[in-house]
Amino acid sequence: MANHVSCSGAKLTGEDVVLCSGCSCALDLCISALANAGDNILIPRPGFSLYSTLAVGLGIEVKEYDLIPEKSWEADLDHMASLVDENTRAIIVNNPSNPCGSVFSEQHLKDILTVAEKHCLPIIADEIYDHFVFSGSRYIPIASLTTTVPVLSCGGLTKRFLVPGWRMGWITIHDRNDIFGQEVRDGLKRLSQRIIGANTLIQGALPIILKETPQSFFDTTIEVIERNAKLAYERLSQVPGLSPVMPAGAMYMMVGIDRSQFPVFRSDLEIVETLIKEQSVFCLPGKCFNIDDFFRIVLTIPERFMHEACDRIEEFCLQHSYLSTKETMALLKINEDSAAEEAESGSDEGVDLRRASSSSSCDSDGQHEKFQQPRKKHPRPTPLLRRETVTRLV
Amino acid sequence: MANHVSCSGAKLTGEDVVLCSGCSCALDLCISALANAGDNILIPRPGFSLYSTLAVGLGIEVKEYDLIPEKSWEADLDHMASLVDENTRAIIVNNPSNPCGSVFSEQHLKDILTVAEKHCLPIIADEIYDHFVFSGSRYIPIASLTTTVPVLSCGGLTKRFLVPGWRMGWITIHDRNDIFGQEVRDGLKRLSQRIIGANTLIQGALPIILKETPQSFFDTTIEVIERNAKLAYERLSQVPGLSPVMPAGAMYMMVGIDRSQFPVFRSDLEIVETLIKEQSVFCLPGKCFNIDDFFRIVLTIPERFMHEACDRIEEFCLQHSYLSTKETMALLKINEDSAAEEAESGSDEGVDLRRASSSSSCDSDGQHEKFQQPRKKHPRPTPLLRRETVTRLV
Repeated sequence: MANHVSCSGAKLTGEDVVLCSGCSCALDLCISALANAGDNILIPRPGFSLYSTLAVGLGIEVKEYDLIPEKSWEADLDHMASLVDENTRAIIVNNPSNPCGSVFSEQHLKDILTVAEKHCLPIIADEIYDHFVFSGSRYIPIASLTTTVPVLSCGGLTKRFLVPGWRMGWITIHDRNDIFGQEVRDGLKRLSQRIIGANTLIQGALPIILKETPQSFFDTTIEVIERNAKLAYERLSQVPGLSPVMPAGAMYMMVGIDRSQFPVFRSDLEIVETLIKEQSVFCLPGKCFNIDDFFRIVLTIPERFMHEACDRIEEFCLQHSYLSTKETMALLKINEDSAAEEAESGSDEGVDLRRASSSSSCDSDGQHEKFQQPRKKHPRPTPLLRRETVTRLV
Repeated sequence: MANHVSCSGAKLTGEDVVLCSGCSCALDLCISALANAGDNILIPRPGFSLYSTLAVGLGIEVKEYDLIPEKSWEADLDHMASLVDENTRAIIVNNPSNPCGSVFSEQHLKDILTVAEKHCLPIIADEIYDHFVFSGSRYIPIASLTTTVPVLSCGGLTKRFLVPGWRMGWITIHDRNDIFGQEVRDGLKRLSQRIIGANTLIQGALPIILKETPQSFFDTTIEVIERNAKLAYERLSQVPGLSPVMPAGAMYMMVGIDRSQFPVFRSDLEIVETLIKEQSVFCLPGKCFNIDDFFRIVLTIPERFMHEACDRIEEFCLQHSYLSTKETMALLKINEDSAAEEAESGSDEGVDLRRASSSSSCDSDGQHEKFQQPRKKHPRPTPLLRRETVTRLV
């Protein structure tokens, strides 16, 4: 493990590695070791919901620093710095990012380290998507860029090796100036022995998994995901009311929603719920990552499903959006006759929109997110009806 | 799982089962679900140290009820009842027991339930050694004896299926009168999803493991352990200063130490440390289970090692005990000449006894406890020298 994760300028030994039952457990131990109840930690928004789940359960407050979609989801450093107070104990940095799929540049990582150093804060680096970057991007472990800011990096097999459920994670301790001292190391070790960690079968296989997985395995995975990312980006960029943000790594893409285009819905959650109900396309709403007016799509599906999903999302948006452009009118023209028919038959499915109940579980690491198919019946678009119900329901 | 653990009168469904990353995790979730910081739970003494580790780490106090060695380690029920106060939230009952190897009778389990019922307390049943009992004993799940006391039973594959490290445990909820209500069930479910649980490879194998493991596998295991228990009991009963308590199940035997026979040592810890140093026999001191003047031996070793270990323990005790009986004198007679020789050569190994440092890890589920062998050099007993050093060191 130490050889596997050692990065340029940050050579590790076995003493610097703590094996855990998955990366979630690694994050749990890092948060528990660095902060007590009443302290706070900084986490990204939008961000993986587990940070908050873990911390708040321990009585630790979370303060969310903004990521900026217009800057490929870089952190708002001024906002980050403004959140630090005397009870702040760590900054969680997630790179590559779930849900954004962003990959930070060397300069941006250095800028984050400058904030951390200024405020004497360690970094908890959620690097579960390490090396998981598209062509033209480069993954840089944040620990490789500092000798002065202590970094606990959390990783695991799940993502890059595509083995969710194997529960094999790790913490690597990067602290060349021994700022943590023995206390944090002892704390991590003890916490890792409270409930004994990763399954021994997987531990036994770990050296071979790390050493002998061929590069072609990773290349193929990235190829598939990058192709899906490009496809979804191109397709969804054309859909009125949607603004996808092109990712540079990981498995996800965030898609912005111009809600003024969808006045029938009161939130992104309602849009996502209706999308499941009507089109059987299951995305996670921004709500799961604490950001409004976005939804997240997962890019790890076969290409033909990605096409199909984009078709359905497009159809859904055309049906539910205000018809404000000529292009949209043209797109919808073909459906008008059938829609008018349904309107005449007294269908009140517009009302059903409001009943579209859902217990969205926000299982935000994408394990359950999927495009359900096939739909039993592909409903004919009903844009004119929809426009009438808008008037009635909003 | 539900079929596997359903016991007479306590039929379960899938809704009553929570899979966990090992039985330790199951115990952690039960304690976390039933008690908050500032509350207390009752735990057995001597008992598995994990109960206290888990609870105290959550700010939950532990109160220890005595187990009585003279009554085959039955619980002192008056003592148990006397510990209950308004902040008590549960009673942990460990049957069959680590470290005692005791197996409670139906009547004793009913008596414990009476205490629980009187004080409106649920039971957390640590039943990881379920069915792991010697001939003539019977394992009775405590939940099968009550309809009114809610029981959370914790189990797993590790012990009976001899697969430590596979991290497959479970909680079964027995609550026929719905006293827990939805709150405890929801709490357990949520806690079990905080860090996602058991490895999916093992989960996939679980149905076959449970259904198709032949009875002969269990029978053979029990046979080996019971034979070792009898052997160790017979052998150690003959050793001056030791009082083994015959177990009826699990993998362990507690051995009482009459410390008046070993005045050179200040504690059972010191005895165990010196036993490792001089004889390379590694037992856990009573201290690890919060009881004085006992040590625990593990019975899961090949019979020839058990013989060898008993030889060495006997030799050790004869060397270090007061010579108070004719039998002991006779046993030692053969060694006197060589001992006198060593005394003349000016050996001061008595002083080394005090230096016998050790970082006893109290890893009390027996994974690391073993008889190290072979010894490089089997030292000749030196009883007379030892008796001289007693005078000097105590």
